[in-house]
Amino acid sequence: MAKTPIWKSIAATLSNEIAVGHYSPGDKLPTEAQLASRFSVNRHTVRRALQDMQEQGLTQSRRGAGVFVMAEPTEYPIGRRVRFHQNIAAAGRSADKRLLSLQTRPCDSEEAEALDLTKGDPVHVYEGVSLADTVPIAVSRSVFPGARFPHLIEGLEQHASVTKALAAAGVRDYTRSVTRMTAVLATATQATQLNISEGAPILRTISVNVDLEGLPVEFGYTWWVGDRMTLVLED
Amino acid sequence: MAKTPIWKSIAATLSNEIAVGHYSPGDKLPTEAQLASRFSVNRHTVRRALQDMQEQGLTQSRRGAGVFVMAEPTEYPIGRRVRFHQNIAAAGRSADKRLLSLQTRPCDSEEAEALDLTKGDPVHVYEGVSLADTVPIAVSRSVFPGARFPHLIEGLEQHASVTKALAAAGVRDYTRSVTRMTAVLATATQATQLNISEGAPILRTISVNVDLEGLPVEFGYTWWVGDRMTLVLED
Repeated sequence: MAKTPIWKSIAATLSNEIAVGHYSPGDKLPTEAQLASRFSVNRHTVRRALQDMQEQGLTQSRRGAGVFVMAEPTEYPIGRRVRFHQNIAAAGRSADKRLLSLQTRPCDSEEAEALDLTKGDPVHVYEGVSLADTVPIAVSRSVFPGARFPHLIEGLEQHASVTKALAAAGVRDYTRSVTRMTAVLATATQATQLNISEGAPILRTISVNVDLEGLPVEFGYTWWVGDRMTLVLED
Repeated sequence: MAKTPIWKSIAATLSNEIAVGHYSPGDKLPTEAQLASRFSVNRHTVRRALQDMQEQGLTQSRRGAGVFVMAEPTEYPIGRRVRFHQNIAAAGRSADKRLLSLQTRPCDSEEAEALDLTKGDPVHVYEGVSLADTVPIAVSRSVFPGARFPHLIEGLEQHASVTKALAAAGVRDYTRSVTRMTAVLATATQATQLNISEGAPILRTISVNVDLEGLPVEFGYTWWVGDRMTLVLED
């Protein structure tokens, strides 16, 4: 059995200090030089330990600013049902949505394909910020077919919930049909909306949701703050 | 119906030029100043268009270097089955794995919990780079229970495939039990292994796979290159 490398025992020590609360989420760790001195190793060894901790999601290095302790991310299940408020409540947090914009406009070709419309057909577009315990966790854009839901704009204005607005428009139930996921970097606008740094890691999901008859009712982009969210897919 | 904003028509023009191949993946777009001059708008308007394109995944701004056209990412289905070679082949690409390291060592507490072991029990650890059409798309670390699979190391050395090595160890079939996904930034080591920049967006998945009896056979971290991969979850 191999002997534990030094960097690994440094990572374990620091991880334990985070676990017991010696360092809290948002705290800056000591510098590489300080850690090298504390553990009597060179900076290369410290860097290897910090990299390992970052790969585990425990810390994050921000260029020029230092290494910071990450907060425990909210776990968000992606099951067949798509219910923001329920999902956040299940994680023991309070959910809220902040409206950014609401408009009716002609759809582009990507939206037309996703919603089974013709390019230029009217769609309702909802843009908003999702919050868990008042912390922004995602910004999203949802696109709905305009002809099928002529009064959806009023519904979305009334309810801070897509589920409720769709229910008021006669959609009793809807499920996820396909979700595409990748990682991108936050743009300057998203950074402002989400209170993160430009270039912070973002988990982007693109989904189509369908009603019980399989007709598409919502096409959505969501940009999740990577540091604050874990999407959980269970068997 | 609202009039199309200027930034949107600039984004559409540039997107079309990418679609028809005027700009190819990896190409640098003209500077903001050049684009502002071409479209007779101010740089703020150009920036809004470029941000929109980045949010769609068409381009990516690299600090200090400019805005680059992204390659069409490989689509990778995350169904119940976890079969790297089959999944990549289904996307019309050739799959390969490059071994980084292979060892047997005592497991840590996270690995013990995932694999239903006691901390310190032996595990086999496989680290490798996954390639699609010779381009690195992910680096992964897979951890297997040592006592159950005494000869797995040899199997992993022989086959460049986890599926084949597990089959040789008597696991006829295995499925995804739970997968956790988030976005992180590439570390320096990952950047070297994946031929990307430090700080590039990474989609990190953490999964537990189980055999037909529901016993955990593999606990794995995978760091996917965001720019090169889209994970697709179908209903």
